[in-house]
Amino acid sequence: MAKTVFVTGGAGFIGSHTVIELLNADYDVVVVDNFANCVESKGRMAESLIRAQQIAGKEIHFYACDLLDKNALSEVFKKHKIDFVIHFAAMKAVGESMQKPLFYYKNNIVSTINVLEVMKENGVYNIVFSSSCVVYGDPQYLPIDEKHPVGNVANVYGRTKYAIEKMLEDISRAEKQWNIICLRYFNPLGAHSSGRIGEDPVRAFTNLMPIIGEVAMGKREQLDIYGGDYNTDDGTGIRDFIHVMDLASGHVAALKSLDKAVRFKCYNLGTGRGTSILQLIKAFEEVTKRPIPYKIHERRLGDIPAIWGDCSLALKELNWTAKHTLNDMCLDFWRWLSANPEGYPKTSRIISA
Amino acid sequence: MAKTVFVTGGAGFIGSHTVIELLNADYDVVVVDNFANCVESKGRMAESLIRAQQIAGKEIHFYACDLLDKNALSEVFKKHKIDFVIHFAAMKAVGESMQKPLFYYKNNIVSTINVLEVMKENGVYNIVFSSSCVVYGDPQYLPIDEKHPVGNVANVYGRTKYAIEKMLEDISRAEKQWNIICLRYFNPLGAHSSGRIGEDPVRAFTNLMPIIGEVAMGKREQLDIYGGDYNTDDGTGIRDFIHVMDLASGHVAALKSLDKAVRFKCYNLGTGRGTSILQLIKAFEEVTKRPIPYKIHERRLGDIPAIWGDCSLALKELNWTAKHTLNDMCLDFWRWLSANPEGYPKTSRIISA
Repeated sequence: MAKTVFVTGGAGFIGSHTVIELLNADYDVVVVDNFANCVESKGRMAESLIRAQQIAGKEIHFYACDLLDKNALSEVFKKHKIDFVIHFAAMKAVGESMQKPLFYYKNNIVSTINVLEVMKENGVYNIVFSSSCVVYGDPQYLPIDEKHPVGNVANVYGRTKYAIEKMLEDISRAEKQWNIICLRYFNPLGAHSSGRIGEDPVRAFTNLMPIIGEVAMGKREQLDIYGGDYNTDDGTGIRDFIHVMDLASGHVAALKSLDKAVRFKCYNLGTGRGTSILQLIKAFEEVTKRPIPYKIHERRLGDIPAIWGDCSLALKELNWTAKHTLNDMCLDFWRWLSANPEGYPKTSRIISA
Repeated sequence: MAKTVFVTGGAGFIGSHTVIELLNADYDVVVVDNFANCVESKGRMAESLIRAQQIAGKEIHFYACDLLDKNALSEVFKKHKIDFVIHFAAMKAVGESMQKPLFYYKNNIVSTINVLEVMKENGVYNIVFSSSCVVYGDPQYLPIDEKHPVGNVANVYGRTKYAIEKMLEDISRAEKQWNIICLRYFNPLGAHSSGRIGEDPVRAFTNLMPIIGEVAMGKREQLDIYGGDYNTDDGTGIRDFIHVMDLASGHVAALKSLDKAVRFKCYNLGTGRGTSILQLIKAFEEVTKRPIPYKIHERRLGDIPAIWGDCSLALKELNWTAKHTLNDMCLDFWRWLSANPEGYPKTSRIISA
């Protein structure tokens, strides 16, 4: 019998792509989302999920539900026989998190506590949590592996991720029935190869790729790059960009691992390769044949010069590795953007407070 | 006109002693407590607070209210014109925190988020938060001052305190109107000199002094000391014991400092002196003329050999210093215990889940 996965924040960027992979892997999928980071469709289901269903040729169960409303969450949870939870839902804009710390602590931490409580109340103890390489802070060595110290985090968004990781670890120590996997994402790019779903940030439009996209579309004059004199080959910052569909397959791999008793585990999900901002731009230009003018500015306070992951643990224990190239990420993103220059239809867009 | 202080957890050990000092300093005092760590009296007010009122000869406003119920909290808050908040309320048993991490994270962090939200909604931005020297983890040097690294905390209770400190700091950075003082308590002992109020732990009876008291009363055969071979003068652990009335006066000093724009500050509240467990026992025996037989066991995992505070910053900036001696702590505790061998009347004791 198909196992059922309860996906919080499943209408968002990584969530919606993961939903496709879950459906492809024959899981039953229940999604809750409050539309904080995605577009609400006319009916009750988010547009990203309507399309995910079309792509996979299967249906999901969807509920508009804010995780801060524990009663509502509890009601949804009871309607299904849940085997696993994937907890994507979170506020995720670094800059905004510094402006609205209380909002971020509340949304990210209280909602996680509610999810965990509802899981316990229903005897469900398997969870995959969306963490981030941000928990490592400034790298003490590269590539960064899971043994690298965590916690010295420079922004509020990252501190909420760190606090939740610690909480999950504490819970797994105290209550032996839990199986918890934290996936520490590096920098997700790209989109589903159909070009039907992709990144459509409603809040805080500050991610690199959407801005490059705006420049490519002629909506923005140039790309502003902060820091051109880092101690890297070309002077710009280095990141470990990973295709969102690779992240998606990483979640399926993690679910399979939860069938064993893992207790508490953290895995890097990246490509294991560092790519500079200029290399990314060049790849994008080659793939799309669009020029991306850029201007290099002073370094930004708090930015990390270079980070990329050692992802061999996920290969060894989850049998997972990233398969898509940088060109794939650029091409798939461009396909999504070309077909959806304004993102998802905005007729009923709502922006949460 | 008298300023009004909203005190969460005001019926507890440190809270009830602080309430006396607040009344003595002519503050209007509003207390909310959920009786998680204290005894509920027959009527609506906690016995500790009935007695605090008698000692001070003044009345307080008291509400039985759980901080997890934000609506209830909000209603109470609106009934008064609040100038300051002192946020004592928290679960505080280290051992229990390792057994029930989710319960501790929820109670300590969510309640604090609710308090902060209600404060904002009512335009109140002055708060004193009960932190602890536990945030320092294992001391890298002694005496430990406020510049010592924080965060490498060995237990869940301490991690909730650390997480809240970071949250408060983040909020103070983002929103300039906040004035936040974290008081990092060392080890509180003693009782009000009247012997009318003191420590009456309902939950997890694991604190040193109450156990010494039980031995002195003949209710317990001996005191179990864990670790007799530490690198200290007599081999037992060293702590910075501080009289609870000194802690209480420290809160009044902190409130006065909040009149200035402090933004975010942390202060150690201790005596600045280290005392070994054996020294404490000796002092107790001398003051009470009761023998305290003890047995030394193996060290306990996670126990810190020695910690005491450099408390000169509180002297410099709050004009506060601890005044009571170790003998005072023993004598006042013994006076309280002798007069109240069973603690507060237990007729209506309720223990929260």
